[in-house]
Amino acid sequence: MIKARKLRDKLFIITKDKRFEFTMMAVIIFSALVIGIHTFDIDPVVENVLFYLDYVITIIFVIEITVRIAAEKKPLDFFKDGWNVFDFIIVAVSLIPIDNNYANTARLIRIFRMLRLITLLPELKVIIGALFKSAKSIGYVMVLMFIIFYVFAVVGTILFEKVESGLWRDVGIALLTLFRVMTFEDWTDVMYETMEIHPWSWLYYLTFIFLTTFTFLNMIIGIILDTLNEEHKKVEQVRIDEDKEVMLEILEKNKALELKLDRIETLLSKK
Amino acid sequence: MIKARKLRDKLFIITKDKRFEFTMMAVIIFSALVIGIHTFDIDPVVENVLFYLDYVITIIFVIEITVRIAAEKKPLDFFKDGWNVFDFIIVAVSLIPIDNNYANTARLIRIFRMLRLITLLPELKVIIGALFKSAKSIGYVMVLMFIIFYVFAVVGTILFEKVESGLWRDVGIALLTLFRVMTFEDWTDVMYETMEIHPWSWLYYLTFIFLTTFTFLNMIIGIILDTLNEEHKKVEQVRIDEDKEVMLEILEKNKALELKLDRIETLLSKK
Amino acid sequence: MIKARKLRDKLFIITKDKRFEFTMMAVIIFSALVIGIHTFDIDPVVENVLFYLDYVITIIFVIEITVRIAAEKKPLDFFKDGWNVFDFIIVAVSLIPIDNNYANTARLIRIFRMLRLITLLPELKVIIGALFKSAKSIGYVMVLMFIIFYVFAVVGTILFEKVESGLWRDVGIALLTLFRVMTFEDWTDVMYETMEIHPWSWLYYLTFIFLTTFTFLNMIIGIILDTLNEEHKKVEQVRIDEDKEVMLEILEKNKALELKLDRIETLLSKK
Amino acid sequence: MIKARKLRDKLFIITKDKRFEFTMMAVIIFSALVIGIHTFDIDPVVENVLFYLDYVITIIFVIEITVRIAAEKKPLDFFKDGWNVFDFIIVAVSLIPIDNNYANTARLIRIFRMLRLITLLPELKVIIGALFKSAKSIGYVMVLMFIIFYVFAVVGTILFEKVESGLWRDVGIALLTLFRVMTFEDWTDVMYETMEIHPWSWLYYLTFIFLTTFTFLNMIIGIILDTLNEEHKKVEQVRIDEDKEVMLEILEKNKALELKLDRIETLLSKK
Repeated sequence: MIKARKLRDKLFIITKDKRFEFTMMAVIIFSALVIGIHTFDIDPVVENVLFYLDYVITIIFVIEITVRIAAEKKPLDFFKDGWNVFDFIIVAVSLIPIDNNYANTARLIRIFRMLRLITLLPELKVIIGALFKSAKSIGYVMVLMFIIFYVFAVVGTILFEKVESGLWRDVGIALLTLFRVMTFEDWTDVMYETMEIHPWSWLYYLTFIFLTTFTFLNMIIGIILDTLNEEHKKVEQVRIDEDKEVMLEILEKNKALELKLDRIETLLSKK
Repeated sequence: MIKARKLRDKLFIITKDKRFEFTMMAVIIFSALVIGIHTFDIDPVVENVLFYLDYVITIIFVIEITVRIAAEKKPLDFFKDGWNVFDFIIVAVSLIPIDNNYANTARLIRIFRMLRLITLLPELKVIIGALFKSAKSIGYVMVLMFIIFYVFAVVGTILFEKVESGLWRDVGIALLTLFRVMTFEDWTDVMYETMEIHPWSWLYYLTFIFLTTFTFLNMIIGIILDTLNEEHKKVEQVRIDEDKEVMLEILEKNKALELKLDRIETLLSKK
Repeated sequence: MIKARKLRDKLFIITKDKRFEFTMMAVIIFSALVIGIHTFDIDPVVENVLFYLDYVITIIFVIEITVRIAAEKKPLDFFKDGWNVFDFIIVAVSLIPIDNNYANTARLIRIFRMLRLITLLPELKVIIGALFKSAKSIGYVMVLMFIIFYVFAVVGTILFEKVESGLWRDVGIALLTLFRVMTFEDWTDVMYETMEIHPWSWLYYLTFIFLTTFTFLNMIIGIILDTLNEEHKKVEQVRIDEDKEVMLEILEKNKALELKLDRIETLLSKK
Repeated sequence: MIKARKLRDKLFIITKDKRFEFTMMAVIIFSALVIGIHTFDIDPVVENVLFYLDYVITIIFVIEITVRIAAEKKPLDFFKDGWNVFDFIIVAVSLIPIDNNYANTARLIRIFRMLRLITLLPELKVIIGALFKSAKSIGYVMVLMFIIFYVFAVVGTILFEKVESGLWRDVGIALLTLFRVMTFEDWTDVMYETMEIHPWSWLYYLTFIFLTTFTFLNMIIGIILDTLNEEHKKVEQVRIDEDKEVMLEILEKNKALELKLDRIETLLSKK
């Protein structure tokens, strides 16, 4: 029992070691490079080397995750942190034995190991956290955006159903076409084609562009203001608290003075 | 009479019920989906089903709006809220009997029912309100933008009237071409064409792009600053008020002290 | 003499009249429309009407500017305001008699009358003022941007001189090509072409895009921060002044209290 | 010895002279123009003149840098400032004798002299400093961006390896293709091509565009907020310090009052 605990403590120290983290980071980057090299035309010999390298990397990953689980007091505590679960799934999935005929699928799965860099770099976790936060604050603008897109898509399929290019065939393709128009990607080609059937259809595109650009701009401004206000309030709070402390001290002093004066007045009156 | 009032109260409770709102939201989304499915090539049987479904949806909408009007103390009060009028018009318009030959027109009208989602989601109403507010604050920048566009459009039609593509045929088309240039959509194609006639015409485009981009940027910055200042003032006001309260209390205390001292001085002088 | 002054006073009242301003605004917009209509294929009869209308408009403009000059106490004071000089030049230039063969040149000159709308709408003057201000604050970033462009343009002409499209023929055309790349307009076409000669030339484009985008972003952020700080300081100043007033009052009171106490102490000591 | 010091002082005064700086600025701009002119088809005579002009410019640069080094108390102190080293390298490199056959290489090197404008204009140094600062603050977002790009590039090469255009041949080209998609440059052409093989590949592009745009937006907002907060804190600190000064003065006064009252109370009690 004591021996087990000693081992666990040792493992815990290892997992928190900077060198352990750097090694893992190097392995992850190396693993990403290996998959990257695979995409070039490579010599069969090199390919063979890479194949075995990949095995080694997988084993390292398994060892690392095992060590980290073993370092916990209760192994199941490991899964209480969402990022740990994220790591575990990525490693577990890459263990699934895949037939050599599906080498591509195997590679597809293994590239996601690179996402483990996020778990290793705390700064990236912070950024991801901020992204999720601002994503939440724009949820309803996204709903509004989708309503605009959907209404325009249906209107587009009805108005431009006879267009030859098939960009308005059904509501799904129309949504994709509208997204293209919103990114300004050859949007005039789309417009000039429909203007041949409906000369007034420029109105449709301009309205759409104005509406979406304007909503998009307001979304960005919204994120800026939200974040800014939050930061601002924090700073302000500190400042207010500091100021108030001094002011309340003055007030306290004044009350003390009043009490003193009361006593003097009583003294004088008595005489 | 009493019976009528009881019914009205009951209806009022129903309309404020979360379940009522969720049902309506589901009906609206379902109605949008039905119209969306119509844009795909569908089986006549399905089309028939959709046709009757559409009837059902229309009836549900009519019932809903009737219930909401009946729930008001005075039915006409319903129309005092702009959003209610918006709902009413959307439902009323979709009731207009349209010949089967104009099935597209009917569908075109019914897709706008989806906008009723905005009325149901208060968060969307807030966003729309914010959009209108910032739209107002950029009104004059829009006027300036239009002046720039119009002057450049007329200059364009005069300078490039001999261009073959017809992108500068008249002031209307020139405005559209300039909007295209502003979105950077194949703007060099437009420029290279006119540069064959007027080798210096790149000056025209660069001036236009600089002017509009710069005005546009300033508009965005304007919206950010406007909203920021407003928020800032609110926060500041709260802070100032809090600070002032304490400071005025101190001042009050000081005045009380002065009065006390005056009394003591009088007491002392008398003796 | 007195008669002349009376007339001047009358004219002054007229020029400040809202109706006078609205009339002028209508005339300017009408004048812009007339020139706009000219760009469409029009009936010779209409063209004749427009020709005479144009005369009438020119006469109205001359009368207006004469009235405004006459309304000044000293006519030359009129030219002390930059905007008045702007108005005068626009009207004066459109008076230059132009041969009918140069009808286009005449129209070109007259469209600039539309800019007089800016003089009439004080809100637009404010926006133009803000634009100039932020233009000044980005002057040096523009210099930096030009250095980047020029260096890349020369490097481009040297590296890609053998490219067939002629997009890198000389430093002038290279600057235009780089501006095109900066607006992302078919920039990959430019890149793919040079990559056939120099496979590594993507490095050139990516460096250029990163440098310019980054400088551009910093310029925008600079404008936002500049304007924001200025506004912020104004608000803060008001707040500080208000706060300080109360605090100084408290300090003053305290000094008065001290004096009182000194007197009391003297009184007590004497006894 | 004394003579040498006198000379050094004289040189120092010269290097700090505005006229000296303006002359150098003129020489740098002139030198950039000379290289620019070379990119046009020019007369052999002019070319000859430019050739000798270039010699003159190089000599002026050498003299200038020699004077600036000689003006230092210890010549080696000159190299303590990074910008001086920057200047020295640019001048030194352009001195390397290059065979006439490599005229282009020589010109390539000499255009970088233009960067010396940055050293001469302190305002540009400030901007460059700000750029480096904000570049540092986005370092980790860049890492995240690269992870997204790399993962998508590998996935792209695996999914779309059979695409004819070769835009997904290997991970390097795939990264370039993704950068193209991110700039929205003909991204639909890339998508439509892969959609023929994988009809669902639009999901790949939309995910990528959403992820990168969103990360990019957050990066910009991050820079704005960082800079804003820093500026804000500076202003706030000044304000807090001023406020506190007055408040502490009040507190000090109050304590003095208390002491006085204590003395009075003692006086009264004694009697």
